[in-house]
Amino acid sequence: MGRSHNVVVRAGRPHVGREVRVARGALFDPLFGGDRVGARLDDAAWVAALVAVEVALAQAAAAHGVIPAAHAEAIAAADLDLDPTALGLASVEGGNPVIPLVRALRAAVGPEVGLSVHPGATSQDVMDTAAVLLTGWAGEVLLDDLRAAADAAAGLAAAHRGTPTMARTLGQQALPTTFGLVAAGWCAGLDRARARLGSVLGALPVQLGGPAGTLDGLPLPVVADLAARLGLADPGAPWHTERTRIGELAAALGVAAGACAKPATDVVLLAGTELGEVSEAAPGDSSSMPHKRNPIAAVTARASARRAPGLVAVLLAAMDGEHQRAAGAWHSEWETLADLLRATGGAAARLRVSLEGLAVHPDRMAASLPADPSTGRAAELVDALLAARPRP
Amino acid sequence: MGRSHNVVVRAGRPHVGREVRVARGALFDPLFGGDRVGARLDDAAWVAALVAVEVALAQAAAAHGVIPAAHAEAIAAADLDLDPTALGLASVEGGNPVIPLVRALRAAVGPEVGLSVHPGATSQDVMDTAAVLLTGWAGEVLLDDLRAAADAAAGLAAAHRGTPTMARTLGQQALPTTFGLVAAGWCAGLDRARARLGSVLGALPVQLGGPAGTLDGLPLPVVADLAARLGLADPGAPWHTERTRIGELAAALGVAAGACAKPATDVVLLAGTELGEVSEAAPGDSSSMPHKRNPIAAVTARASARRAPGLVAVLLAAMDGEHQRAAGAWHSEWETLADLLRATGGAAARLRVSLEGLAVHPDRMAASLPADPSTGRAAELVDALLAARPRP
Amino acid sequence: MGRSHNVVVRAGRPHVGREVRVARGALFDPLFGGDRVGARLDDAAWVAALVAVEVALAQAAAAHGVIPAAHAEAIAAADLDLDPTALGLASVEGGNPVIPLVRALRAAVGPEVGLSVHPGATSQDVMDTAAVLLTGWAGEVLLDDLRAAADAAAGLAAAHRGTPTMARTLGQQALPTTFGLVAAGWCAGLDRARARLGSVLGALPVQLGGPAGTLDGLPLPVVADLAARLGLADPGAPWHTERTRIGELAAALGVAAGACAKPATDVVLLAGTELGEVSEAAPGDSSSMPHKRNPIAAVTARASARRAPGLVAVLLAAMDGEHQRAAGAWHSEWETLADLLRATGGAAARLRVSLEGLAVHPDRMAASLPADPSTGRAAELVDALLAARPRP
Amino acid sequence: MGRSHNVVVRAGRPHVGREVRVARGALFDPLFGGDRVGARLDDAAWVAALVAVEVALAQAAAAHGVIPAAHAEAIAAADLDLDPTALGLASVEGGNPVIPLVRALRAAVGPEVGLSVHPGATSQDVMDTAAVLLTGWAGEVLLDDLRAAADAAAGLAAAHRGTPTMARTLGQQALPTTFGLVAAGWCAGLDRARARLGSVLGALPVQLGGPAGTLDGLPLPVVADLAARLGLADPGAPWHTERTRIGELAAALGVAAGACAKPATDVVLLAGTELGEVSEAAPGDSSSMPHKRNPIAAVTARASARRAPGLVAVLLAAMDGEHQRAAGAWHSEWETLADLLRATGGAAARLRVSLEGLAVHPDRMAASLPADPSTGRAAELVDALLAARPRP
Repeated sequence: MGRSHNVVVRAGRPHVGREVRVARGALFDPLFGGDRVGARLDDAAWVAALVAVEVALAQAAAAHGVIPAAHAEAIAAADLDLDPTALGLASVEGGNPVIPLVRALRAAVGPEVGLSVHPGATSQDVMDTAAVLLTGWAGEVLLDDLRAAADAAAGLAAAHRGTPTMARTLGQQALPTTFGLVAAGWCAGLDRARARLGSVLGALPVQLGGPAGTLDGLPLPVVADLAARLGLADPGAPWHTERTRIGELAAALGVAAGACAKPATDVVLLAGTELGEVSEAAPGDSSSMPHKRNPIAAVTARASARRAPGLVAVLLAAMDGEHQRAAGAWHSEWETLADLLRATGGAAARLRVSLEGLAVHPDRMAASLPADPSTGRAAELVDALLAARPRP
Repeated sequence: MGRSHNVVVRAGRPHVGREVRVARGALFDPLFGGDRVGARLDDAAWVAALVAVEVALAQAAAAHGVIPAAHAEAIAAADLDLDPTALGLASVEGGNPVIPLVRALRAAVGPEVGLSVHPGATSQDVMDTAAVLLTGWAGEVLLDDLRAAADAAAGLAAAHRGTPTMARTLGQQALPTTFGLVAAGWCAGLDRARARLGSVLGALPVQLGGPAGTLDGLPLPVVADLAARLGLADPGAPWHTERTRIGELAAALGVAAGACAKPATDVVLLAGTELGEVSEAAPGDSSSMPHKRNPIAAVTARASARRAPGLVAVLLAAMDGEHQRAAGAWHSEWETLADLLRATGGAAARLRVSLEGLAVHPDRMAASLPADPSTGRAAELVDALLAARPRP
Repeated sequence: MGRSHNVVVRAGRPHVGREVRVARGALFDPLFGGDRVGARLDDAAWVAALVAVEVALAQAAAAHGVIPAAHAEAIAAADLDLDPTALGLASVEGGNPVIPLVRALRAAVGPEVGLSVHPGATSQDVMDTAAVLLTGWAGEVLLDDLRAAADAAAGLAAAHRGTPTMARTLGQQALPTTFGLVAAGWCAGLDRARARLGSVLGALPVQLGGPAGTLDGLPLPVVADLAARLGLADPGAPWHTERTRIGELAAALGVAAGACAKPATDVVLLAGTELGEVSEAAPGDSSSMPHKRNPIAAVTARASARRAPGLVAVLLAAMDGEHQRAAGAWHSEWETLADLLRATGGAAARLRVSLEGLAVHPDRMAASLPADPSTGRAAELVDALLAARPRP
Repeated sequence: MGRSHNVVVRAGRPHVGREVRVARGALFDPLFGGDRVGARLDDAAWVAALVAVEVALAQAAAAHGVIPAAHAEAIAAADLDLDPTALGLASVEGGNPVIPLVRALRAAVGPEVGLSVHPGATSQDVMDTAAVLLTGWAGEVLLDDLRAAADAAAGLAAAHRGTPTMARTLGQQALPTTFGLVAAGWCAGLDRARARLGSVLGALPVQLGGPAGTLDGLPLPVVADLAARLGLADPGAPWHTERTRIGELAAALGVAAGACAKPATDVVLLAGTELGEVSEAAPGDSSSMPHKRNPIAAVTARASARRAPGLVAVLLAAMDGEHQRAAGAWHSEWETLADLLRATGGAAARLRVSLEGLAVHPDRMAASLPADPSTGRAAELVDALLAARPRP
């Protein structure tokens, strides 16, 4: 974010007399844990993904004789200097960024090679494949943070498999359990959510069907070839308005966010002054109360996670796209999916910070316990849960 | 619905001077396709499921020496005449129907056997397991309707693999495809959604953990035994506030509803007067316009499907339950899950009706086509999609 | 719920070999507070409202010479014995219950008067007006419970305007406030939500437009006359697919649910064992732990309130209905609106119980306070908030 | 967006070997109509709003003797060069950007005046008030676009009050109406949504309560003074966790999005090839089919509007904040509210473009009509609806 984005302000409305430029993400992404995943989803990433798809498409088409090999090479070597802002403005007329991107690519390679740009494809082929690529890039970070958060929970579970603490039901102290079992439950949820998300991410396919979804003018093997070049799955057939995969992706992200919300909520409650059974490594201070010890990583993990269910609902509702290209439902996916990846990624990243630095206070736990607490099969259940963890 | 539920009305407010009794479901369930699935989710089904769980629990406990075998037999043989209305009223005080149910069971079996009722369990064990049982019962109907709708789509795809029709993108006629490819896409979405839902349903486990989730007083094998008796999975450990499974269930239902919404939307549009490319077998008439031919099965399938995303969001948001028993989030699942099963089941049931009776009009399709329509690889893609269908 | 709805069970699946009848609402409505409002929204209430609309429409039409006055009298006097179950089954073909209802009314009054039944109207006119009527009936209960909950909060605020207690921010003890200010905040939210809901409910209009929404064959004043007869507002014009009013209604209900969720959440937390600063009058026991003191009214108020946001989202999404009658969006409103009324009504009813019986424990509050707590302008703010309450 | 944000790419993953910087908004905001409203909600706008609040707070505090007048002047004159990126990174520790902002302000004004920075306030006071300020700034654009879209609809209604066209119900041609009545319905929805949104926006208040919400150390009139300086309302009391106002704001935005979705949906359908009754002024072309005439403004208006219901649900769910400062629910509002403003603003902006340039084709409408179409009271209803429009 260059100097021009600084805000030289006193009081006043920043948009009066200021050039209309939009830049968001820098102020809140770090706080909500969305910066690492968000860097793989920003405007530049979108443009890079779109270009990557066009290049791979040209190469796959050339490999099957649809366009000359030399054209594919020229397209791959094209020196493009694409400004997302300009591309964004140029997208308005046609309804998506692929149209001006193809124009720019054609201009960059000249009229003859230009005929070989975007061979057999429609805008949605490129947009959907780029979205899948981006999702994969962002998903790596997300899976990594989910894994680390689960590992941290597993570490807590192992360390405290026998540490007695009061179970609480409906907010009331119930009977003893162990803190290890509490943490093992966190771990189990995170592991299960990660396994499903990993499986969904790993099966995301390219999109390639052409204007009517009939692969007109393209040999069928081009699809598998394109998929191989981009490290994506082969869908078997175009899925322009068959959006179960996007629904499944949204769903897996929503479940992952929920799996993060659970331990984050527990940490916030257990770190409350009256319980004080855990504390974060770097609790936040306050603008007005320096004595406060806010579990701010867990708080912001919860905040991120709470954004997910509504975003999932938008993506599920978008599955009803009309005919062979949805008139709005499809378009509503683009930013919503990125937001959902950021929200879920943020929840995982912040939860990871919370759990990796979590201090556990058995003395505080002991204060609520009866003299000789029976913790039932808690330690046994911890062992079973940890033994059942999926391999890395 | 007995005579007392008829409405003997002229104008007026039915609740004035009328005994306060609530009965819903009879008026709208058939219209929205929720009657068959709803019959497995109604008050009586809940009560039956709760009783089934208590009985199986007693039997499993007896099998492992926790209670005498004769007690389990007496519990299984108890003659209970449970009125859901009375049970509902008695649930208010303690916060769930298990508390009065256990009381009733104990009363039915007498003081000695009564001590063996509900051995080692907590209310949530019974509620969660009953909810899973009900979900499985309802899920059978749902999977059946999804399968039948997919089969109907597959039949349309095979019959019309080469029937040319205009693809439409953003509402505009684009280039030719075949109606078979359109229907094969419907089939693919329904099959994928059903496969995932079937897999989630098949893995739903019993809940058993006792008050603190530590299986205090129960040998570990009781859990697997209970699962076997009820035809459910063994969870490995209690999942009182580890709700990824419920999140996954909600998600799979939401995706299935979306997979139904897509063909329903297409049928509504294709059956529109100006397109007229398909029509339903029993189009609805109108209270005022007898000439209308409303595709009412598709319309009500859409209506049911549109209810799902918001219900999924509620269930995903409920994953953040506090400590060892959530104070509200858990309770919010009960009716929401039943509503989601009914909405998704309704969408599948009504879509099935729509597709099983769908008449296709190639002459109307032809009217929009160019003289010599090229349909690309449409027929090839139909074959590939049908060949890739999962075995029954 | 008659004897035939009892469940005579041992273990087993209730739907095998049992007549398919659906009855829901009796088991969970009381627990979640939805029984009182639900009684005004059940199948019988729907049928009564539909009949009330047809009768009032005939009377209004007669008053303006559209049909003979004697016909309107005959319609109003018709002896209808309508079974919601039969009506529900008969609704499937045409897509809504008005079609068979009109048929039944015509049969009841004979062929000549039958021509005067449903004069100038379309099904949606009757369904929408009936839904508005029902909403008003249910709304009375809801407003009453919101008012009572707010009054209870105001009573707590007045009684404890000076009772010092620790404010908690991000779960941490911050600085002192008074419990009166806490309760005054609850009251303010409830009052604001009720005021808006009351205003929205009070402005809900009849629907009358006829098949094409052009009031063909009806003098304009019939609309105002119909409105007056039903105690509803005059919309000025048909609103068949202009659903801002339904959106506003959904929104006001969602805000009311949120206004209930806030104090319910606070009560759950403040009643937690470690804080113990409040307790409910009739805390729930447990199926396994008789020592528990669960704040079950607040817990179930939260549960009900948590269902609202997703239902609001469904209704807002339904605003995009096509052309002059939506093909699914409209139909998705019927059960969703009733569910939202029940969820919000349940939250208000259960919160009312919680707050009306809330015991406050200043001694427990004092334990967390510094020696000489300064509570700033808390008492002053309580006075200001209470003084600003809307008149009843 | 400076040169450094361009993407100089061939194929490949942009985040490998690239400095992690996030910039989003430039690529998609123009397409979805969110650029104008988004410019008032970006990182720079947030920072400017936060500073504006701190300055006004100092001035209000000085006016009531809380801090020296010279200190307020020094604070207002402080030369701050705030980089949102740095501020974002510095926010992580404490949990919000106010903490580092206050630090920066104190550094800028020196140790003595620094004691007068942020007088009596807590972070949430400044964040909430800044969010309200931003909302007002963005709301101006939104109300302007809603007004213009409604005016365009009113213009169409007046021009075509008597232009006959077929009403369509459930996708089927029903009976004639006029296009003027269709457009008047659009106008009515937009006007109603705008009126409510304007009223909610106009009543949004400042937040000022201090750490415990007790206004400790501040004279009560400072609140009204702060409100006056910022052009906001006086709330009467702090509303840190009394979020009905945010719920109402979310709700009004959701209804406005729905009011935009309705005409956008109709335009998409009416512009379909087979109906062809309207067309946009600048229909989009296609990357593969130059003959297409896509109603891209309406398509993207729908896309934006479809994002709103889920975002509203998140904000309604956030009303349940705990105690005196919510541990996550509050934080989840910040980006969600900005996203909702952008989505709703985008829907209004794109709909405005669609309607302002809409060409109506009475000849195409006539093709579906009977010989002598009766349009009932359509023209009369148009007049009534236009006469009832709110004054500007």
